[in-house]
Amino acid sequence: MVYVGIDLGGTNIAVGAVSEAGSILAEAGCKTLASRPYQAIIKDMAELVQKVIRKAHVTEDEVKAIGIGIPGVADDQGMVFNCTNLGWVNVPLRAEMQKYIHKPVLIDNDANCAALAESVAGVSVGCKSSVFITLGTGVGGGIIVNGKLWSGGHGRAGEIGHMCLVPDGVPCTCGRNGCVERYCSATALIRTAKQECCNYVDTAILQKAGGNIDKVNAKMVIDAAKEGDASALRVFNTFARYLALTISNITWFFDPEMIVLGGGISHAGDFLLDSVRPLIPPCQMFEKLALPRLELARLGNEAGVIGAAMLGR
Amino acid sequence: MVYVGIDLGGTNIAVGAVSEAGSILAEAGCKTLASRPYQAIIKDMAELVQKVIRKAHVTEDEVKAIGIGIPGVADDQGMVFNCTNLGWVNVPLRAEMQKYIHKPVLIDNDANCAALAESVAGVSVGCKSSVFITLGTGVGGGIIVNGKLWSGGHGRAGEIGHMCLVPDGVPCTCGRNGCVERYCSATALIRTAKQECCNYVDTAILQKAGGNIDKVNAKMVIDAAKEGDASALRVFNTFARYLALTISNITWFFDPEMIVLGGGISHAGDFLLDSVRPLIPPCQMFEKLALPRLELARLGNEAGVIGAAMLGR
Repeated sequence: MVYVGIDLGGTNIAVGAVSEAGSILAEAGCKTLASRPYQAIIKDMAELVQKVIRKAHVTEDEVKAIGIGIPGVADDQGMVFNCTNLGWVNVPLRAEMQKYIHKPVLIDNDANCAALAESVAGVSVGCKSSVFITLGTGVGGGIIVNGKLWSGGHGRAGEIGHMCLVPDGVPCTCGRNGCVERYCSATALIRTAKQECCNYVDTAILQKAGGNIDKVNAKMVIDAAKEGDASALRVFNTFARYLALTISNITWFFDPEMIVLGGGISHAGDFLLDSVRPLIPPCQMFEKLALPRLELARLGNEAGVIGAAMLGR
Repeated sequence: MVYVGIDLGGTNIAVGAVSEAGSILAEAGCKTLASRPYQAIIKDMAELVQKVIRKAHVTEDEVKAIGIGIPGVADDQGMVFNCTNLGWVNVPLRAEMQKYIHKPVLIDNDANCAALAESVAGVSVGCKSSVFITLGTGVGGGIIVNGKLWSGGHGRAGEIGHMCLVPDGVPCTCGRNGCVERYCSATALIRTAKQECCNYVDTAILQKAGGNIDKVNAKMVIDAAKEGDASALRVFNTFARYLALTISNITWFFDPEMIVLGGGISHAGDFLLDSVRPLIPPCQMFEKLALPRLELARLGNEAGVIGAAMLGR
């Protein structure tokens, strides 16, 4: 059988026909143009599905299901009730898609899809359990248990970005305080880097930004830290310490075989792993138990399409 | 089939023959006398197994497996490498037990067993997913996914007591700081109550302790809070706020259908639930998603035996 995956983003729509083993057989894509009515966007998605089916030289009968990864949350009925980047509120995504294609349509969060993709065709292949953490503008996550995606009892599982890391800490966009996302995202890294730039005007971070604090981005901080700049190292180590605490909390609660780091910050590569691993606090009571392996995601941008497709497997 | 469960505690050993549905058919028990050699303790356990099989009027052929709940952690081979209350280090529990009884022997943490028991025969029956939190001298937990106990990739899952709640917070017995156990256990409730007694000598807590701060216990704090004593309410509400944060973190990470509170503090009953529920911080992003149901454990002391037995189901 063949599975079609749709990675619906705020900027681009990517669609792929994917094999049982998680290989992309054919791809197609277009701009989302998110300000359009949802009906027009979903019509484009349906046309892209037909296109990849043709490109993959399979018949519609050979397609088992359509999976859609969204930057938000849908309910059991395929109703998307929260999708900030698209401005979608209560969009009947499944029902609208099934006007064009008479196949099962499965919908899940994009970070959940990435977690599934890595477990089917990426770094966590063969792991019975894994947790994927995406470190981007925000922080998301996905949980694999017994080889299957765990979306939770109400579709909220893996929202690692909104676990509380610091009681009464930095205010979060969700209305609460001290969420992981406020300490372990690219946004957080940039925020603390800007504070550092105010205190240490000779930092290499500011040089890379051409002296303009508003141009500081995560790559500049990471590059300056790799070069040994003291301010950048302080900023990055603070970030790494909070990430290590988050990883530790996941370890003691869920104890997966592997924890996978993805998203923009994961492009820091071994520098990220080497910074975080020594900061995971050891626990004397369970020192004989192995910790989950900590690894980098492997699939990059393809994870969205592959994971969405694998929802139907 | 019949399942035998053994609840191995630091003070008592309780053994029961348990039906497929989680009902206790026959029981037996003895003192642990934990300072004895482990061989003597395990011999007693084996004799109690034979005894409950006879009392339940079943043949040994009808017994499918023996499950043992321990206050510690065992590896895949049934080797107990950490069991503080018993002083056990590297005790080959399964191998020793199988000298007497030729049945599969399954071993898991006592909090995991309680989680399983509640899901088979207690408050969380019918829930596909649940998380059990035991609020006693320490804080433990157990996770049920798809109706099965989840012990993790390395046997550590559900160690809720050692998730970090307050970075750089109160030092923990595990060698780290700010663990949940330091804020949400009976020990923590008593610690903050004693601090309060130092500041407010006219508190009802201290009256209940006969003016002797060393005699303050969790029940006195809860009783004084129920009576409306201002100091006791401050102490209990601080406790409830930390517990609510812990429940919130479990909700955003794992999103179980139900979260079950057990252990000594859960005897505060509806007063505990009514204190904690309003303190679970709402999240504007997902306000339409139902939260996990928060309930009290129902099985009490029997949970240990029933859950241990159900390990073999």
